[in-house]
Amino acid sequence: MTAKKEIKTIGVLTSGGDAPGMNAAIRAVVRRGLSRGCKMKGILKGYNGLLNEEIIDMTAVDVSDTIERGGTILYTARCAEFRTEEGQKRGAEICRKHGIDALVVIGGDGSFAGAQKLANLGINTVGVPGTIDLDIACTEYTIGFDTAVNTAMEAIDKVRDTSTSHERCSIIEVMGRNAGYLALWCGIANGAEDILLPEKYDYDEQKVINNIIENRKRGKKHHIIINAEGIGHSEAMAKRIEAATGIETRATILGHMQRGGSPTCKDRVYASIMGAKAVDVLLEGKTQRVIGYKNGEYVDFDINEALAMTKSIPEYTYEIGHALSHNYSKNVK
Amino acid sequence: MTAKKEIKTIGVLTSGGDAPGMNAAIRAVVRRGLSRGCKMKGILKGYNGLLNEEIIDMTAVDVSDTIERGGTILYTARCAEFRTEEGQKRGAEICRKHGIDALVVIGGDGSFAGAQKLANLGINTVGVPGTIDLDIACTEYTIGFDTAVNTAMEAIDKVRDTSTSHERCSIIEVMGRNAGYLALWCGIANGAEDILLPEKYDYDEQKVINNIIENRKRGKKHHIIINAEGIGHSEAMAKRIEAATGIETRATILGHMQRGGSPTCKDRVYASIMGAKAVDVLLEGKTQRVIGYKNGEYVDFDINEALAMTKSIPEYTYEIGHALSHNYSKNVK
Amino acid sequence: MTAKKEIKTIGVLTSGGDAPGMNAAIRAVVRRGLSRGCKMKGILKGYNGLLNEEIIDMTAVDVSDTIERGGTILYTARCAEFRTEEGQKRGAEICRKHGIDALVVIGGDGSFAGAQKLANLGINTVGVPGTIDLDIACTEYTIGFDTAVNTAMEAIDKVRDTSTSHERCSIIEVMGRNAGYLALWCGIANGAEDILLPEKYDYDEQKVINNIIENRKRGKKHHIIINAEGIGHSEAMAKRIEAATGIETRATILGHMQRGGSPTCKDRVYASIMGAKAVDVLLEGKTQRVIGYKNGEYVDFDINEALAMTKSIPEYTYEIGHALSHNYSKNVK
Amino acid sequence: MTAKKEIKTIGVLTSGGDAPGMNAAIRAVVRRGLSRGCKMKGILKGYNGLLNEEIIDMTAVDVSDTIERGGTILYTARCAEFRTEEGQKRGAEICRKHGIDALVVIGGDGSFAGAQKLANLGINTVGVPGTIDLDIACTEYTIGFDTAVNTAMEAIDKVRDTSTSHERCSIIEVMGRNAGYLALWCGIANGAEDILLPEKYDYDEQKVINNIIENRKRGKKHHIIINAEGIGHSEAMAKRIEAATGIETRATILGHMQRGGSPTCKDRVYASIMGAKAVDVLLEGKTQRVIGYKNGEYVDFDINEALAMTKSIPEYTYEIGHALSHNYSKNVK
Repeated sequence: MTAKKEIKTIGVLTSGGDAPGMNAAIRAVVRRGLSRGCKMKGILKGYNGLLNEEIIDMTAVDVSDTIERGGTILYTARCAEFRTEEGQKRGAEICRKHGIDALVVIGGDGSFAGAQKLANLGINTVGVPGTIDLDIACTEYTIGFDTAVNTAMEAIDKVRDTSTSHERCSIIEVMGRNAGYLALWCGIANGAEDILLPEKYDYDEQKVINNIIENRKRGKKHHIIINAEGIGHSEAMAKRIEAATGIETRATILGHMQRGGSPTCKDRVYASIMGAKAVDVLLEGKTQRVIGYKNGEYVDFDINEALAMTKSIPEYTYEIGHALSHNYSKNVK
Repeated sequence: MTAKKEIKTIGVLTSGGDAPGMNAAIRAVVRRGLSRGCKMKGILKGYNGLLNEEIIDMTAVDVSDTIERGGTILYTARCAEFRTEEGQKRGAEICRKHGIDALVVIGGDGSFAGAQKLANLGINTVGVPGTIDLDIACTEYTIGFDTAVNTAMEAIDKVRDTSTSHERCSIIEVMGRNAGYLALWCGIANGAEDILLPEKYDYDEQKVINNIIENRKRGKKHHIIINAEGIGHSEAMAKRIEAATGIETRATILGHMQRGGSPTCKDRVYASIMGAKAVDVLLEGKTQRVIGYKNGEYVDFDINEALAMTKSIPEYTYEIGHALSHNYSKNVK
Repeated sequence: MTAKKEIKTIGVLTSGGDAPGMNAAIRAVVRRGLSRGCKMKGILKGYNGLLNEEIIDMTAVDVSDTIERGGTILYTARCAEFRTEEGQKRGAEICRKHGIDALVVIGGDGSFAGAQKLANLGINTVGVPGTIDLDIACTEYTIGFDTAVNTAMEAIDKVRDTSTSHERCSIIEVMGRNAGYLALWCGIANGAEDILLPEKYDYDEQKVINNIIENRKRGKKHHIIINAEGIGHSEAMAKRIEAATGIETRATILGHMQRGGSPTCKDRVYASIMGAKAVDVLLEGKTQRVIGYKNGEYVDFDINEALAMTKSIPEYTYEIGHALSHNYSKNVK
Repeated sequence: MTAKKEIKTIGVLTSGGDAPGMNAAIRAVVRRGLSRGCKMKGILKGYNGLLNEEIIDMTAVDVSDTIERGGTILYTARCAEFRTEEGQKRGAEICRKHGIDALVVIGGDGSFAGAQKLANLGINTVGVPGTIDLDIACTEYTIGFDTAVNTAMEAIDKVRDTSTSHERCSIIEVMGRNAGYLALWCGIANGAEDILLPEKYDYDEQKVINNIIENRKRGKKHHIIINAEGIGHSEAMAKRIEAATGIETRATILGHMQRGGSPTCKDRVYASIMGAKAVDVLLEGKTQRVIGYKNGEYVDFDINEALAMTKSIPEYTYEIGHALSHNYSKNVK
């Protein structure tokens, strides 16, 4: 879809759950836009702030010293009203009222759906994938995943220390909503004995229990289970496992710390490129696009196509994750 | 109390909850003992391992590359049997059987009580304070506190990022058992709006709620409450606060990650000095002692005196903790 | 090229400069090999150790608790002798003597050239890309780059703090040998005012000096220049810049810290998959291959083809790196 | 010395080298002052900014979200003019002109000397010890040391990884100006084989060389030498050592990264208490004081007495530092 009018003013907002690197993306959008001659506006608190007209001018200085900061300086929120047709129309009108010709939306699939509607109402839009969950099908990378997975991994390394000292079983629940990417990566990176993913879980807890008992017989000091948020119920699972195995078992739910923190280098770099590309795509006259990183390149997709894509846990990675931590077990004392 | 016999062989064990820096202390005990001509033995899994005769020789190489590692390479455990007189007698006999003249016990008050009994039964003992809770009265420093408080603080910094982005109220529960030191330090270091300590808590939740409402009126974006494990019930508290204030409120229980991780510089240095001093104290012919850091010096106390001491939250620190985060509020927009 | 004989015993070595994640790769090679029924041998100190027959058996336990450790448990070294035909023949003979049918070589292009020779002499070989420099043409990812770039970035964040406080100009020299990838990524991630890459450097220092003077006029508090090792001479550059601008200018050469440290999640995960895939490729009967990550997939290439490939700094990334930090400057006070 | 007049307006400045935690101290000064009813002013760029009248009002919001940030939001600089009597008189006049009754000076001994002069000229002053060097005699703690020593230690842990992989000797030069505290702490915490302190160095390089050769004979894989800035010349030392031992030897000068970074928990907490206490001391009517932490307590001293104190490397700590890393060596393979 190609936009008709010239882009003079570009707005930017963050929407949905926040993710480390969103500030790097905002900074890139603002600075790229300014350097290409546009006026830049920040919309606070996502679509909610749009409907409340919480709109501010953005200069290059406003995004100074933000690339290294977690959270989003534009704040974020959910917005029920914007899911209605009336809300969307009001949003488009407010954009026009404030002279916003084009909008960069940093967020996940839900946020892109909003951008899709605005595009249909004449506001040029482009989405930038920002979510720690990595659950956007059109892209191999989403802003925040790399920071979140390192935060979780480092926390689990610490849990593992004490788990080993006490010869405990530990269940650590990581975020990811319905997607298991965070859990899978942590499972591999932390050398977990079991990795429970919503995409693969068969609810056969007895297998997990048998695995613990066998590992203990072979002399393993700890037993780390990474459990995805999409499965959840880690506390209850810990109690059942302790009852079944007689081995002290504790659950840790890592929680909101996974959403914050100074972004990693990858998150800062990719968010910078994607944010700049979003502006470049708009200034090429495109609209209703989503930026992605696919097959080693930064690309852009039509939002409708992007939202229709699916992706799944990579099979070889999943197989190796399992093989390295517990299939090897016959050979271990 | 002065030991009679010459010390030829020294054992070392870790007992109770593990703490980062315990390995630095073990390394120091082993290397200081070896350099002073002793034979060194490691007892695995605390008093439990003593009763099971899980005793190994320790050389300088066995503790190489351990100063930077979390957990305890000697493992740790609780031991009900050792709380009985019979268990203690058996423990002393096993020491004698293995030629262990003296024992360094790294742990908390409970572990020192065991050392006290062994000393009465003729085994020269010295305790080294190791607990993340800082709840040992005779010393201003306990191995692991500094690492744990930094781990918690860094996690809370991250929670604060996302709490601000979403304008949430966040309750973060930190460890410390019945003591509020971890909570107080985090409260100050994270600039928390409320700090709930078991030593000071009046169970007046309405004050907390009023504080949140007033802060929000004044435009504060987040509201961070540090809750001590000794108070607990953070999840239920979050639900009540959300119901009372209408502000989204989430609880995070940091959990076992606070027990692990590579020790901070302070924990490595103090643990090294204390471990070495424990050996030096034994070789001076002393027994039934506890190492402490008090008034700017490394010292040793009689275990009985040490166990009889009390300490409490420092009043000025507590007052400042409150003053900096919310008393200032009249002046804030 | 396809191997003729059945693979019963696989050796693994690390060669060239070490990189964080090499241990994760070794662990994956060893455990994948064992789980597929092979005998596994570790060769110490690269080709040097091969020629000295420093060869040890590897069990699953030998690689326990190594995934999170920096360095390489197999050590590494340079080896002049192995660059000679005689050395290579001796190497192949020693492999045969020790029953090593196949060899996984973790390292850079130089190490792969050795593997190529051994393959020609009848030892099945596969290379796994391990270098912090990212300068292996056949792959978008090399083990260690992600950790090194984060280490450098975090150090530069710290330099930037003090650089701002003192309103200094800071030149920070990062590793990368003749390649500018580390410098480019840090330049973007740290929001550097100038990024000097060997691939792009025109040795026009006056441009850098003019840029500093203009930025200072506009009120910028710091001026961060990331200089790649391939350009070097940061100390002399700092002196010249200070003389020309009158602005206090300091050089920091980050040095060997960039080679160590616990690997990031990406380095652990990718190293694990690549290590496992190296074994799988050998057991498919292939030889003289290099594992790569290209276009979003783990793949393997013929060593000859791999060594003939070239790659260069991605232009769009380079352009954006510049645009975000100093082209925007007209708009900044 | 007791002040005569009532304190209505308090100024705060940072002076000398910056240190992590200075922002926590500024925040505490500002918020404590406001909560006790004072007007607060920030003076930019130390005494330099005072003489240039770079003076701003400070509200509670101005110090929001600064406790976790490195550097100093007030900037810092050296000021030759303020070392002259005329400069000091002008400084005092400017204070009076801006209604500044009292001044909190965060810095080192040099900065306190300035405060002493201003006090003699009728401006009530109190110093807060801020320097990463720990070289202020009246206090066991100085703001920034704890962060700097952890930054250095973590960097050295990384150097050690690669030093081990390559079986290298590494000399790492840490900051501290003429004081060896940073070097001593790192030496112990990193398990260094040699620790070179200006207070103890006998310039007998042959001893260091012999130590390296003996350690290598005994099979030690790395040899870490921590060299203090007060000794310096690490590059030349590395060359001489490599020539004398034949062992590859590399120098790393950690440099300015040691001055930056988010402060540790200890730096945030102690800086908060000390900053608040500075205000309380002024409001008690005192002047010409320095805040210290001594014998387990926050205290205040007369500046003249404080500047006349001396302190030295603690002997037992120094002895243990050596004993743990290389005296033990007879027993090591």
